Amino acid sequence: LPTIEAANEEALRRLLAGEPVLVDVIPAAQAIPELSDRMILHAGPPIEWERMCGPLRGAIMGIAVFEGWANDLDDAARKAAAGAFAFHPNHHFGAVGPMTGMTTPSQPVMVVENRAFGNRAYCAINEGLGKVMRFGGNDAGVLDRLRWMRNVLGPTLGRALRETGGIPLKPLIARGLTMGDEMHQRNVACSSLLMRQLAPMLAQTARLTDELAACLAFIGGNDQFFLNVAMAMGKALTDPARNIAGSSVVTAMSRNGTDFGIRVAATGDRWFTAPVEMPAGIFFPGFSERDANPDIGDSAIVETIGLGGFAMAAAPAVVGYVGAGRASQAAAFTRAMSEITVGTNPAWTIPAMDFAGVPTGIDVRLVVETGVAPTINTGIAHREPGVGQVGAGVVKAPLKCFEDALVAFAETMGVA
Amino acid sequence: LPTIEAANEEALRRLLAGEPVLVDVIPAAQAIPELSDRMILHAGPPIEWERMCGPLRGAIMGIAVFEGWANDLDDAARKAAAGAFAFHPNHHFGAVGPMTGMTTPSQPVMVVENRAFGNRAYCAINEGLGKVMRFGGNDAGVLDRLRWMRNVLGPTLGRALRETGGIPLKPLIARGLTMGDEMHQRNVACSSLLMRQLAPMLAQTARLTDELAACLAFIGGNDQFFLNVAMAMGKALTDPARNIAGSSVVTAMSRNGTDFGIRVAATGDRWFTAPVEMPAGIFFPGFSERDANPDIGDSAIVETIGLGGFAMAAAPAVVGYVGAGRASQAAAFTRAMSEITVGTNPAWTIPAMDFAGVPTGIDVRLVVETGVAPTINTGIAHREPGVGQVGAGVVKAPLKCFEDALVAFAETMGVA
Repeated sequence: LPTIEAANEEALRRLLAGEPVLVDVIPAAQAIPELSDRMILHAGPPIEWERMCGPLRGAIMGIAVFEGWANDLDDAARKAAAGAFAFHPNHHFGAVGPMTGMTTPSQPVMVVENRAFGNRAYCAINEGLGKVMRFGGNDAGVLDRLRWMRNVLGPTLGRALRETGGIPLKPLIARGLTMGDEMHQRNVACSSLLMRQLAPMLAQTARLTDELAACLAFIGGNDQFFLNVAMAMGKALTDPARNIAGSSVVTAMSRNGTDFGIRVAATGDRWFTAPVEMPAGIFFPGFSERDANPDIGDSAIVETIGLGGFAMAAAPAVVGYVGAGRASQAAAFTRAMSEITVGTNPAWTIPAMDFAGVPTGIDVRLVVETGVAPTINTGIAHREPGVGQVGAGVVKAPLKCFEDALVAFAETMGVA
Repeated sequence: LPTIEAANEEALRRLLAGEPVLVDVIPAAQAIPELSDRMILHAGPPIEWERMCGPLRGAIMGIAVFEGWANDLDDAARKAAAGAFAFHPNHHFGAVGPMTGMTTPSQPVMVVENRAFGNRAYCAINEGLGKVMRFGGNDAGVLDRLRWMRNVLGPTLGRALRETGGIPLKPLIARGLTMGDEMHQRNVACSSLLMRQLAPMLAQTARLTDELAACLAFIGGNDQFFLNVAMAMGKALTDPARNIAGSSVVTAMSRNGTDFGIRVAATGDRWFTAPVEMPAGIFFPGFSERDANPDIGDSAIVETIGLGGFAMAAAPAVVGYVGAGRASQAAAFTRAMSEITVGTNPAWTIPAMDFAGVPTGIDVRLVVETGVAPTINTGIAHREPGVGQVGAGVVKAPLKCFEDALVAFAETMGVA
């Protein structure tokens, strides 16, 4: 047991020692050289076409058309079923993506560098709300937006970021936590703060006034713009904690809409999966739980680093948005998460809790022992391809993932 | 008494019915035609040079040089003492100003229009932190900044605002309250949100790329940029509640560094003054209470509309900044203020208090009856001219203002 405590301390040390910096926006093919033609990265643990849920299929059909690998959505579906595309998790290539999480060669990705460890992580740019590909949207409007993001927004952001020398994210998150963000379903503060830092550099590096104004309007019109930055940061912070012998700390939580999967420090890149649960939440007008797809996305990486549901106390306004009760009870979620984590983050504190640090480093032993599952704040996609977001809610990570992980972890410790 | 209740309901109705919109930035001489040569508007109730505190004198010396009315600071002081300048409160001309609150003809002022009542109010642009004129700073750097604000920032902001058709402030404040602002000592959320809305229009209307980048950097680098907008809004919202017979609701609270003054609906433009108190707070490194000037500024207009100290519960992070105790106790301040107000504002709510509205409409009767003085979150200026900000704190409005106002109010009701 002293070995485990020491290994978990090391895992926590690495999570807290990271220095994530948003450094660039570049095409995914450049960020991830292994990303070849007809290869599609998706959210969650590995899954084949046959088992994929509606919105994931919808996004794949759309992105195949976007990349020029199919003539239309039907053609894309046929080709996907016939094995024309290679599907892999984002997590296998240093990437993450919200909801369906499409990452393909020509999409621009944001690059977060963890300067304390030298690793990089990637996430596509947030498309905004409404009918968008991450929620399974794939119509002409969705694809046109992705083309503009590829041709204008991505290059414009990349030029500005390279000129800044990079934007340190740790202090940005610290401020966001004093401004009602939990960085999963509420990112309005960090989105605004990021834009405030970027705008002068965008002004100096944009090619055309109209492009500049359009980029500023797009970023400024999207309260969730920062989510994808937070996710790339989460991946950049957790990757150095992979492969620590003896550590039972979770290094990834992720969902593909069918399975929930986790990874643990001591068991490296192995996934422990279970059927994903249905979020409990609030539905947009005209939709109900009958329309909902089970939980999906790599975004639970933010809970893995102590944000999202773990930082609910910082964001009382989000409690109602995700249908989790009274705003004044926000701290109860954070306190519950401190029962299953190995420490707190002194750099990311919550004013309303007298600046207590966010609970950090989920210990599979504590999850199994207490039966308290990690709380994840999540968006809810329609179950059919092509529809989009229908609500937001809270979902529990399935305990089975942690039970299986604990068994495998015990085996690494020589306990049969 | 039924008359008083009805009159106070009407005062509250007017405070809540306002529709403040930030519409323009124009030279003060254009906004306030009565603002003639050698006329200097200042914060607080009326005061003559002889009784003015250090920072107010320092600002007057500086602004006289800025306007070309004096060759240097000494010349300005001599002229001021000799009666060369006409001093008047901002409040007498539809204006407000933070701390020393200088308003002179060539300074650009932000224009807030209350579209429900048709009135307008004005406030100069926030200069940023450190050595600035509102804290009594007056050296070459301070004056150079004011010149750039007059020549570049003001005109650039004015062009962008006119193009937007105006930015509605009520929803902006509502969001800010969910993001940790109380709009007095914490304006980082609203400053960021405002910039997010303005940036695309700034991009389209700026004359030069360098000017655009400099304006974006200036606004983006100033967490208190929005304070002056909130103040102009406060003045625009309270002015329609002046002159309501039978109403004991406060329509202005303001300080000139020597006197604290209030105005009450039923007694119109009459000031009730008392010696201003010393803020209790936190001092910047190298400074102490011995360096502090007593309370100063028109900024308490934000408390008059339920923000600042009255909305402390929305801004737990500000509690420590102003040295008022533990962040988790923020709600206690807001609850105390609800004891002296006639109602709450359903449009401006506090998530952590389960979306209770901010306490609004200070009743002089309740202040005198309870002995609970309005709590004001304030910056602290150095007592000497030319130094600047030395801290931030909380100050109580002197009870004597309210006692005197109550006597005068009783007289308007025929009670001798």
